[in-house]
Amino acid sequence: MPTLRFLIAYDGTRYGGWQRQRNAPTVQAKLETALRRLTGRRVVVTGAGRTDAGVHAWGQVAHVTVATHLPPRILRQALNALLPPDILVRRVTRAPSTFHAQFQAARKWYRYRIATGPVRPLFDRPYVHYVPQPLNLAAMQRAARRWRGRHDFRPFHSAGRTVADTRRTIHALRLTRRGRELHVDVEADGFLYHMVRRMVGALLIVGQGKPAPAVAPTAPARGLCLMRVTYRAPRARRRADTTKYSA
Amino acid sequence: MPTLRFLIAYDGTRYGGWQRQRNAPTVQAKLETALRRLTGRRVVVTGAGRTDAGVHAWGQVAHVTVATHLPPRILRQALNALLPPDILVRRVTRAPSTFHAQFQAARKWYRYRIATGPVRPLFDRPYVHYVPQPLNLAAMQRAARRWRGRHDFRPFHSAGRTVADTRRTIHALRLTRRGRELHVDVEADGFLYHMVRRMVGALLIVGQGKPAPAVAPTAPARGLCLMRVTYRAPRARRRADTTKYSA
Repeated sequence: MPTLRFLIAYDGTRYGGWQRQRNAPTVQAKLETALRRLTGRRVVVTGAGRTDAGVHAWGQVAHVTVATHLPPRILRQALNALLPPDILVRRVTRAPSTFHAQFQAARKWYRYRIATGPVRPLFDRPYVHYVPQPLNLAAMQRAARRWRGRHDFRPFHSAGRTVADTRRTIHALRLTRRGRELHVDVEADGFLYHMVRRMVGALLIVGQGKPAPAVAPTAPARGLCLMRVTYRAPRARRRADTTKYSA
Repeated sequence: MPTLRFLIAYDGTRYGGWQRQRNAPTVQAKLETALRRLTGRRVVVTGAGRTDAGVHAWGQVAHVTVATHLPPRILRQALNALLPPDILVRRVTRAPSTFHAQFQAARKWYRYRIATGPVRPLFDRPYVHYVPQPLNLAAMQRAARRWRGRHDFRPFHSAGRTVADTRRTIHALRLTRRGRELHVDVEADGFLYHMVRRMVGALLIVGQGKPAPAVAPTAPARGLCLMRVTYRAPRARRRADTTKYSA
């Protein structure tokens, strides 16, 4: 049976996150249902990582092993016709049978969008967190600088999930102004539960001229989007721990 | 009592259009309700023109004469706090008492957004009309060229509203590719009922290589957005007819 790799985008607003659960619709469940309708079989879709309730994705990656002879383009078209309008399969490709969307993920890039200024956003309102106060970008950039590289990010790990090793490597961390928005882009080898949202929560306090808090609040889910997952070569050894959680 | 001028944006998806009506929520009614809560009085908000059910606006203009001594910035802030998230007051300014948002409107610019290609839009899905087929932009541009200038646009006037004079002047009409989207921008001294959407309906048929239809179908509302209203000098004579209808 061929292994297929999906590049998936979604508006997370009305979902309980990526991962299948009992009490809320999830992106994984919608994909599995669409694939079952298409192939007549139960399938399990494995994502690069969980995204939390309300978090969006432009570049989520998943794999599935499924009995189908449909060409990838036709499969994509059929899936997009079956999926709800807030989930989109951007690309379907055949992958080596050894490909694993979670275990082989080397880096993930998340973007957090903040809208500032006296007028709230309109058309983009589901995808940005609105902060009316002016923010001191330079102060936020200074505060963020010390997170680059390999550190123990335990202070940004929310309770509710356990993880043995709370060290992560941040490869890139940029704060940039884009018109009336401020983008926080973080690329790392993995993320702890709520890590990006608590980093942004801390940065928002610093940006308002207050001292960095001991315990960072969690910024709202709506501003967060999984932009890209980067993979190492297929044969690399597994590193389950660093990819188990997502921001 | 001061006359105030509003610059208003809205996501028209869940509204029965701009103009107050019995059986559907409208943008005008939401604004009037917010102003009444703020001032304690019934007020009438006059818009530059109607927009139809489901049509969006980035630059709708309206005026109101209202007893308030709140500075415009504070008024805007209070209104945006009272309005639903899909309606936004972008600007409030004091206007001469002679200002009339409808009668003095000289030009309106509408944009119609079409998404093409094998993958449907995701984040912008409420604001674009998706056409999977490839479109011949050059053929569409040729077909649109003959509409520039002053013409009788009766063939693009939908039944349901009567109008004496169906001549309008199109000052600008551009079709441009923007990434995976195609934008149809039309600026005119006024629009007949459904005029832009039927022009786009005709262009979509031409773009798919078919001959221009005798009766143009009406393209869906979701792709249409009122971008800007331009005003002549305050004392110019009234031209009620050309501004009474919107696309």
